[in-house]
Amino acid sequence: MAKIKEVRCIRTRTNGTWVIVKIITDQPGLYGIGSASEHYHAATVVTAIEESLGPMLIGREVSRIEDIWQSLFTSGYWRAGSILNAALGGIDMALWDIKGKEAGMPVYDLLGGASRAAVPCYAHAGGQDHEALVDDIQRYIDEGWPVIRCQLGGYGGGGFLDDAIKPKNAWSDAAAFDDEAYLEAIPAMFDFLRKRLGFGPKLTHDVHEHLRPQVAVALAKRLEDYRLYFLEDVLAPEQIDWFRLMRQQCTTPQAMGELFVNVHEYLPLISERLIDFVRVRVSKGGGITPCRKIATLCEFYGVNTAWQEGGDNDPVNQAAAMHLDMSSYSFGIQEENHFSDEELEAFPGHATMDGGYMYSNGQPGLGIDIDEEKAAKLLKAEPLKAYFAAADRRADGSIVRP
Amino acid sequence: MAKIKEVRCIRTRTNGTWVIVKIITDQPGLYGIGSASEHYHAATVVTAIEESLGPMLIGREVSRIEDIWQSLFTSGYWRAGSILNAALGGIDMALWDIKGKEAGMPVYDLLGGASRAAVPCYAHAGGQDHEALVDDIQRYIDEGWPVIRCQLGGYGGGGFLDDAIKPKNAWSDAAAFDDEAYLEAIPAMFDFLRKRLGFGPKLTHDVHEHLRPQVAVALAKRLEDYRLYFLEDVLAPEQIDWFRLMRQQCTTPQAMGELFVNVHEYLPLISERLIDFVRVRVSKGGGITPCRKIATLCEFYGVNTAWQEGGDNDPVNQAAAMHLDMSSYSFGIQEENHFSDEELEAFPGHATMDGGYMYSNGQPGLGIDIDEEKAAKLLKAEPLKAYFAAADRRADGSIVRP
Amino acid sequence: MAKIKEVRCIRTRTNGTWVIVKIITDQPGLYGIGSASEHYHAATVVTAIEESLGPMLIGREVSRIEDIWQSLFTSGYWRAGSILNAALGGIDMALWDIKGKEAGMPVYDLLGGASRAAVPCYAHAGGQDHEALVDDIQRYIDEGWPVIRCQLGGYGGGGFLDDAIKPKNAWSDAAAFDDEAYLEAIPAMFDFLRKRLGFGPKLTHDVHEHLRPQVAVALAKRLEDYRLYFLEDVLAPEQIDWFRLMRQQCTTPQAMGELFVNVHEYLPLISERLIDFVRVRVSKGGGITPCRKIATLCEFYGVNTAWQEGGDNDPVNQAAAMHLDMSSYSFGIQEENHFSDEELEAFPGHATMDGGYMYSNGQPGLGIDIDEEKAAKLLKAEPLKAYFAAADRRADGSIVRP
Amino acid sequence: MAKIKEVRCIRTRTNGTWVIVKIITDQPGLYGIGSASEHYHAATVVTAIEESLGPMLIGREVSRIEDIWQSLFTSGYWRAGSILNAALGGIDMALWDIKGKEAGMPVYDLLGGASRAAVPCYAHAGGQDHEALVDDIQRYIDEGWPVIRCQLGGYGGGGFLDDAIKPKNAWSDAAAFDDEAYLEAIPAMFDFLRKRLGFGPKLTHDVHEHLRPQVAVALAKRLEDYRLYFLEDVLAPEQIDWFRLMRQQCTTPQAMGELFVNVHEYLPLISERLIDFVRVRVSKGGGITPCRKIATLCEFYGVNTAWQEGGDNDPVNQAAAMHLDMSSYSFGIQEENHFSDEELEAFPGHATMDGGYMYSNGQPGLGIDIDEEKAAKLLKAEPLKAYFAAADRRADGSIVRP
Repeated sequence: MAKIKEVRCIRTRTNGTWVIVKIITDQPGLYGIGSASEHYHAATVVTAIEESLGPMLIGREVSRIEDIWQSLFTSGYWRAGSILNAALGGIDMALWDIKGKEAGMPVYDLLGGASRAAVPCYAHAGGQDHEALVDDIQRYIDEGWPVIRCQLGGYGGGGFLDDAIKPKNAWSDAAAFDDEAYLEAIPAMFDFLRKRLGFGPKLTHDVHEHLRPQVAVALAKRLEDYRLYFLEDVLAPEQIDWFRLMRQQCTTPQAMGELFVNVHEYLPLISERLIDFVRVRVSKGGGITPCRKIATLCEFYGVNTAWQEGGDNDPVNQAAAMHLDMSSYSFGIQEENHFSDEELEAFPGHATMDGGYMYSNGQPGLGIDIDEEKAAKLLKAEPLKAYFAAADRRADGSIVRP
Repeated sequence: MAKIKEVRCIRTRTNGTWVIVKIITDQPGLYGIGSASEHYHAATVVTAIEESLGPMLIGREVSRIEDIWQSLFTSGYWRAGSILNAALGGIDMALWDIKGKEAGMPVYDLLGGASRAAVPCYAHAGGQDHEALVDDIQRYIDEGWPVIRCQLGGYGGGGFLDDAIKPKNAWSDAAAFDDEAYLEAIPAMFDFLRKRLGFGPKLTHDVHEHLRPQVAVALAKRLEDYRLYFLEDVLAPEQIDWFRLMRQQCTTPQAMGELFVNVHEYLPLISERLIDFVRVRVSKGGGITPCRKIATLCEFYGVNTAWQEGGDNDPVNQAAAMHLDMSSYSFGIQEENHFSDEELEAFPGHATMDGGYMYSNGQPGLGIDIDEEKAAKLLKAEPLKAYFAAADRRADGSIVRP
Repeated sequence: MAKIKEVRCIRTRTNGTWVIVKIITDQPGLYGIGSASEHYHAATVVTAIEESLGPMLIGREVSRIEDIWQSLFTSGYWRAGSILNAALGGIDMALWDIKGKEAGMPVYDLLGGASRAAVPCYAHAGGQDHEALVDDIQRYIDEGWPVIRCQLGGYGGGGFLDDAIKPKNAWSDAAAFDDEAYLEAIPAMFDFLRKRLGFGPKLTHDVHEHLRPQVAVALAKRLEDYRLYFLEDVLAPEQIDWFRLMRQQCTTPQAMGELFVNVHEYLPLISERLIDFVRVRVSKGGGITPCRKIATLCEFYGVNTAWQEGGDNDPVNQAAAMHLDMSSYSFGIQEENHFSDEELEAFPGHATMDGGYMYSNGQPGLGIDIDEEKAAKLLKAEPLKAYFAAADRRADGSIVRP
Repeated sequence: MAKIKEVRCIRTRTNGTWVIVKIITDQPGLYGIGSASEHYHAATVVTAIEESLGPMLIGREVSRIEDIWQSLFTSGYWRAGSILNAALGGIDMALWDIKGKEAGMPVYDLLGGASRAAVPCYAHAGGQDHEALVDDIQRYIDEGWPVIRCQLGGYGGGGFLDDAIKPKNAWSDAAAFDDEAYLEAIPAMFDFLRKRLGFGPKLTHDVHEHLRPQVAVALAKRLEDYRLYFLEDVLAPEQIDWFRLMRQQCTTPQAMGELFVNVHEYLPLISERLIDFVRVRVSKGGGITPCRKIATLCEFYGVNTAWQEGGDNDPVNQAAAMHLDMSSYSFGIQEENHFSDEELEAFPGHATMDGGYMYSNGQPGLGIDIDEEKAAKLLKAEPLKAYFAAADRRADGSIVRP
């Protein structure tokens, strides 16, 4: 029986925000990889893996994934935080990768087999104004994407006022975020889009948790007539109990969860059917083992999965999501991710995108590998430090929760 | 990719109540087996498999278990009944057996790997009176069984009155079942047992759903001080909403579910934490695919599994339960089953019992096979017909729900 | 006192999907018939009746319907599934038929007597496009039907996209089902219909459980302004807890239940007033005995009955529904069924339809008989095998629950 | 206005599990210290502070604690995990220390002023058997401690069976944890203690989350008559919804929360009054800023604070707790901590214990400093690695959640 011999991390991408875990066994040539990437605290995750969790794994049998997961989950007494979850998630993926290789099967076959031919994804469209946005959306429609996310002017999607009235001693020169401006801008955007595109295209919007909760509820209600495929992250994770009120007010489908790391964040939302799509990032949820359980939970309650991907994530996490997508009956839609050719070359076997669908190569395990030499070349700068996830503020200078 | 070529049933045991499904693929020597045994309606299950579900499977790829399960589950439009669940359950087990063989791994490895070294089981002790019962329990304790079920006078466990006052035109000469007599007998039995054995041994009792619900609640409360490991099937499946009242009244742990075939029977009990052990029979639940999901559901809510085995079940269903037990973190305890040597010889690779633990042989797939020649010899009589699960009546002649 | 002497099945209609139970007593000429038809698993139901339940009935007194029902219901220990319910339902109807003949009264008289002169029914209108549909509806209006079901393009009622973009390795060439297309199509259909027909005609629509639950809720809300008589089967039976959310969102009347076989499916919906019409098929519910109880339950909560009939059902089940309709105060509306002249000739005494009303012949018992010779001639092909209730899939190849 | 110039960590105690944060301002001699100790992942916390959070703070005004807290809390997008909370908690304490020094006031004065003269604490008594335990308790009583925690045989407090019957292929030689043995042992312990000590002494017990939830509920109920001051950590943080059931069953006061890092863990328990004492560790909760808010929340609902201290915590965290204790109206009791003389010398100004009360020195800020030279001498070994919080397993080898 194969045992764990070494656990180490490979940092890559421009400034080292991608963290790939490699677990090497005592069997010649048998190893697995996983994703523990973290845009803001990559060094912290690496320390957790290489100085704490990794050393505890040496000599453990690779086959016992559930047992390893349970014992690592509580190994630091405190649990269910983004740093330790990501570290555990990367380890868990690598163990499933190894198990698939041992079985000679893609991981989705171990999880119950393909439930679909390929994985439909949603694209990220954006534009500084309505015309630019509709052009971008049309481009994705033409390429065949089944669902398209629509953002105005980038990350936050609208609501920044250059001319907001600030106090005399203003803390910042940056455009101020304004809840009511957002509540005006986004329904207007969808009004424009539905007039131009009709109701055929499936559209979503991502709020990035920026709104005060009462404004979030109002936004969801005002968007109801535009029939979104879903509205994403309309509340900050601290305020998710407001979904109860939102559900009384409108039928706008809700997608939430990329920030979830704790069972008490997603269990009530799913079991009370307060959201429609759960969007945990596979690594941040703690890997395939717990995310498969979340997918199962979703099936009982009629909720769908839409695992988070997006800009700062890596091809290994994408592969892990894809295997869950392929096999889960409760799968709904997958967020896309784009990589440069150079990036993809460092990850032979990566998933391929075509016309809005993601395809597995059907190879054993996760089907993806890392070319460490090429990965090293991707690393072009000092590791990222001191980067704020979001530094948006309102006109008075107060923090906007991302 | 292996495809299904043939699906057939093998009926065995004395009067043919064991139904073993065999799925043969187009790959030389690659097949799997599953259990669809049914003590009361075996012929009906065989018809369902051989005349309905089986023919629909020909040519389907064996790897896509989840997809096959979902499409068969709704193939007859109406779903979630004991006959179709058993048929589907046998097919599902056979597909997991095949997948394990293809992977070269025991099924528990496909499900996430071993969470424990072996599977602790509970034994069935019984006796016509207190002394005979305590002797039987002591025998099991001496053998090392971790948990022991205690029944007085057989199946129903007490409450039959030879001298019940019946109407002049009584419908039956048999001993009458009496709820209040049961409410007197079982606490007295545990009072005797705890005085003799102390509180070290872990004891359970099975009510077999015989009681009126208000008496069931009273029984659970009266048993509280005897600290059962669990009280089993204290309510009929039609009356499980009474668990809410029971939970307000006492902490007696509740095990329920061998009769469950429908999600609306177990989902509320688990998600509202109204029971402590869920006892679905793996085949009657629809196989490994849905029971793995139930085990996952249990984990979220702190409920444990105790898959049903017992007298009328077969070694293949036992093997399926064992693989779930080995891999599920939410596993609690496994019901035992005894087979004759002759029966075991017809199932090479069967699980082995030693000192109250069940052991897997670690072979690929379910690890169990059927020797069809020996199985044919086990079949010694005409198939069982017209057998009532329970024909107990109260003194006035009215039916007692089993 | 008459006792049961023989229980047998007659399979008829083209490929044998109709199963008529005949119970023959020891009294000369005294027999009854019932319906146990099953489009997908008819052979399985026949086995259940002829090899399990039937033999247990021999010698039992026909008068004790309730006692027989209770003892058969639990005779196989596991209960409340579509196969055993249908078998039991056919037996139960035949016993009521016998009791009516013994009394010289139509069954509705035994159930309390006529509450109405005749039974209003709803018709099935359909069309490939709006114009064809409105013509079909107008024809029914002209004939006098009080309520009309409106479907676009057949069974599923809309939402199939011939031009859906599928993955390169698509699993099927068939038109893909699309939830959002459905959400667009059906409100548009009713918008057209209300503009052409006004709000006088009472219209319904049947979703056949095809939608993801969040889309189902949105559909119900979007249809509110079109004032349906009811929206039918908007959720799959596994997801009926979503009715709670639906009730918060809109007043669209809900009809649900043709797939219900378990008390835990209908009891909460009725007692919490989450649906407005309960639509169990009388045979699948287990016969007249339990369906009379469901009708009683409905009366307490202000819910109405709308027993399922429709394409694959037979004239005997229709007669059983009619007797419940005639006598139940909680009756709402009856689904129609069409039969060919040749089919009707095999069932002398069948109900008659005129101007949207169904009429009983007032004869003793169910008032319907089977001409076995003519029934034999209806059987023109091998029994149906390997027929999927629904094989609809979404564009990505995943199963749509029927 | 003082600005942050440097943020660094000092690791101390034997193997470096104490992490003290030092924030140095641009004002001569103005600095503050905080606690970010972490027994299992200290290196990871240090990386988080020195490589991520610290660099983001340079130049920020020290006076804006709330603003810094809010922006750091979401600085890594994902939040509310033990690593980042501890890092943030250490920073937050240091900022309050600075503010106190600037004001020339102890921190409790900034928080509203002293609500009490000193802080009553609870002691940790233990023993291998009943007699040894009662002696230890008596010693604390004699010393004047107002509340005493009672443990049998160390950490887990009972329930380990040396003679548990294990499977032949047992995974471990260690004593097995057994829920039912625990359920027997602890009530017996309190029965003994109450008989010997009467009901005068205030006693608690700490379960350390070891029990299956249904056994936890039973334990709480069985302990009711022994009138504990509180029962601590009777459930794992994943299973805290079982408190609802526990509250229906008994009045045993509940203390919970040393593992809480997420608002959704403590908000429902406090606002539904499901616990009586909240026990967050001040650093793990994110510092004085959020813990002051938790104390405020508690006051609204009649819940009390009992901030976690104990073996692996340091004098700086103790000081932070003490300032909250002194000023919070909702304060209940404070857990004690023992330090060696050598350890205390490295922290001049530390709190003093006398007769079960903790006393502040009344100095500005937290009133405690670190002597870095002496702290360096405390560090006598390599930093701790690969240490499991809990490696307890049941007889079958399965993991016990700590």
